Amino acid sequence: MKNLSEEQISQELEQLEGWTIQDGKLFRLYEFEDFAQAFGFMAQVAIKAEGMNHHPEWSNVYNRLVVHLSTHDTGGITVNDIRLATFMNKAAPS
Amino acid sequence: MKNLSEEQISQELEQLEGWTIQDGKLFRLYEFEDFAQAFGFMAQVAIKAEGMNHHPEWSNVYNRLVVHLSTHDTGGITVNDIRLATFMNKAAPS
Repeated sequence: MKNLSEEQISQELEQLEGWTIQDGKLFRLYEFEDFAQAFGFMAQVAIKAEGMNHHPEWSNVYNRLVVHLSTHDTGGITVNDIRLATFMNKAAPS
Repeated sequence: MKNLSEEQISQELEQLEGWTIQDGKLFRLYEFEDFAQAFGFMAQVAIKAEGMNHHPEWSNVYNRLVVHLSTHDTGGITVNDIRLATFMNKAAPS
């Protein structure tokens, strides 16, 4: 597992609606209808993350969820972060 | 629903292992064995919180969970916060 280059990350971000870079990590804020929808989404992501053995940093208040993704072992952003962000965007209610 | 006084909060905190006050909110850090245990705990609390219509502010990274509890409507700490903190301590694996 290698860190992606800045150019690779920029290319990936073009496909990842709502995601940007913050403090060297992938960052997105999701807003849901309410807490139940937010936590239902978190449960989906938790099961995926556990299966990948790749876990998010996330903060939730009621219907808002802030997510940061990075790869601890490499100290950067890897394809695993892109995969989890892609999954999250697909799982999020539109 | 009224804000508790500082004296009332101090009394309640004597019974609430691990909880302190931070930025005018009840605060506790929980540490679990791993992500699965942390998220399982969060799921228990989410169902309780939804039932109370009283939701936490919480941040999770892998096995760590930081929780802040306060009551939005009153801008302080109420008995609902004490109740949710008490539930969390009972639900947490020892």
